[in-house]
Amino acid sequence: MTVLILTCEEDVTADMVVVHLNASGVPVVRLDPADLPGGVALSGEYVHGAFRGHLQSAGRLVSITGLRSIWVRRPGIPGARAPGTSDWLAEETSQALYGMLRGSGARWMNHPDAARRARHKPWQLRLAQDCGLPVPATLITTFPQAAREFAERYPDLVVKPVSGAHPQDPPRAVPTSRVAPDADFSAVAFGPTLLQRRVAKRADIRLTAVGERMLAARKATAEDADPDEVDVRFASGGVPWRPVDVPPRVADAVRSYLRRAELAYGAFDFAEDADGTWWFLECNQSGQFGFVEVETGQPIARTVAEWLALPRPEPRQQVNGSNAKVC
Amino acid sequence: MTVLILTCEEDVTADMVVVHLNASGVPVVRLDPADLPGGVALSGEYVHGAFRGHLQSAGRLVSITGLRSIWVRRPGIPGARAPGTSDWLAEETSQALYGMLRGSGARWMNHPDAARRARHKPWQLRLAQDCGLPVPATLITTFPQAAREFAERYPDLVVKPVSGAHPQDPPRAVPTSRVAPDADFSAVAFGPTLLQRRVAKRADIRLTAVGERMLAARKATAEDADPDEVDVRFASGGVPWRPVDVPPRVADAVRSYLRRAELAYGAFDFAEDADGTWWFLECNQSGQFGFVEVETGQPIARTVAEWLALPRPEPRQQVNGSNAKVC
Repeated sequence: MTVLILTCEEDVTADMVVVHLNASGVPVVRLDPADLPGGVALSGEYVHGAFRGHLQSAGRLVSITGLRSIWVRRPGIPGARAPGTSDWLAEETSQALYGMLRGSGARWMNHPDAARRARHKPWQLRLAQDCGLPVPATLITTFPQAAREFAERYPDLVVKPVSGAHPQDPPRAVPTSRVAPDADFSAVAFGPTLLQRRVAKRADIRLTAVGERMLAARKATAEDADPDEVDVRFASGGVPWRPVDVPPRVADAVRSYLRRAELAYGAFDFAEDADGTWWFLECNQSGQFGFVEVETGQPIARTVAEWLALPRPEPRQQVNGSNAKVC
Repeated sequence: MTVLILTCEEDVTADMVVVHLNASGVPVVRLDPADLPGGVALSGEYVHGAFRGHLQSAGRLVSITGLRSIWVRRPGIPGARAPGTSDWLAEETSQALYGMLRGSGARWMNHPDAARRARHKPWQLRLAQDCGLPVPATLITTFPQAAREFAERYPDLVVKPVSGAHPQDPPRAVPTSRVAPDADFSAVAFGPTLLQRRVAKRADIRLTAVGERMLAARKATAEDADPDEVDVRFASGGVPWRPVDVPPRVADAVRSYLRRAELAYGAFDFAEDADGTWWFLECNQSGQFGFVEVETGQPIARTVAEWLALPRPEPRQQVNGSNAKVC
């Protein structure tokens, strides 16, 4: 039974996982949907109430119903490198490939539906609350007056995008920024704005969850840190990431979050305050883990490889494609 | 408790449903996400472990957690009519609106995740097989040789798009067409191609499923029909749609399909052969029903209104947003 990795050609993180899979003798096929049709070919037949399908890449033929697991890492747009590429070809190719894979019965990291849903920050906040994770007071609004009233109740605020990365090419991360005390909120009417109480943090936490396993790392805030530098992705400073234990209550809540989100992988960001409380900021279902592994030595790539190498679930649990459901 | 209808301004089908909701005194708010921000405004607050959110449209304010149901009819792209519209605004607005609605606890017709998944034809075919619906032998392939072999086994074939509508503006339906006996399949290598055994049909069947209710209509094939006219959407001819009973085995299979697809609404197309067997062609989760209602007099709009007017499910079943799951 084969592990399928969907990613672009240059992906060091995928390389790290493939090394572990190769070492344990698990067959792997790695391909980029951008090469379909062309370097990648596919065929699926629905005859006499049954499905048989195959993918071909680099001369190797793999059975779709013989897949053990599918890792959706950083796949290209289907058909993007085909001669005569077009929106129509992308749509046809995407539906053919993912439509077949959805019926494969394989385990997903992460299933496309779960991945898509998990990107919605308002939904993340609601789910985190519901799982018992502390969430800093947050407002998402197009009403200037609602923003003003919120800023009166919570005078120390940050603003961040609702959706994450700016959809230009290449995508650009928009940093979380502090809101000035005299901010004018009238422009809120022109686009939904996310305001959040700033957590006076003494550390950033990155918790990488892989199935039931959790690997957390902590980056202490430098004592002389500029309080305007709220976004750890853009912060200067040489304090390294260090492994840290996950408090049991947080671990339970994160497990509940992943189960309800139907995610096999999630990179959780928390801000740790002076009381040691971990405040939920977000869960990125495709968050990078290479930098944490390099700094902390935590075996994240190996843990991902072990999850991908697990046996398939029983038949008939999987036609609708999610990990957690029995149909 | 309010019914929320997301659709564009000119939508006669939505008008038909609103008439029934108004007649039964159920509050309705109808809006187009294209008008957010602008004619539509939104605000949601995550404070002390709870969510409170509102939508405003045409001067009316409605509570998001007070929604009974959400009908995703023909919504515009969020932000599309806002001043300074852009891909970035569309993404921010979409995530804000649908992210909040996903945490509303309301019932969906249809939930965006289920709707998206349901568009994958390969997945439809697999699910239909698995639910016991007869599916005509089908091949989806980029291997010319696989297409040639399939055409030898099934000499009478049709070809149709994998994904449905051509994604140009306005979208164009691509008709299902008969494959000539001497067809050259070498172009299959340039794009996934769906070939299907042609059903020699004596009628087309449109089965509209609304929750547990099924309303089926039958359009007999004219005796002098051209066998090359395989696509009922493009067929000439004056034979009208007439109501027809659903065979119990089909009804059971369709119920199973909807449950596993997590769809509250689905328009199923079947081809009825000379033996009376209904062959599954596809299930369109947003299929039109106005033309069937007009020709058959079947109360589809009223049935949709009745489904939308049902009470909300119990709390805590719905944070991940699907209709069928208890988290």
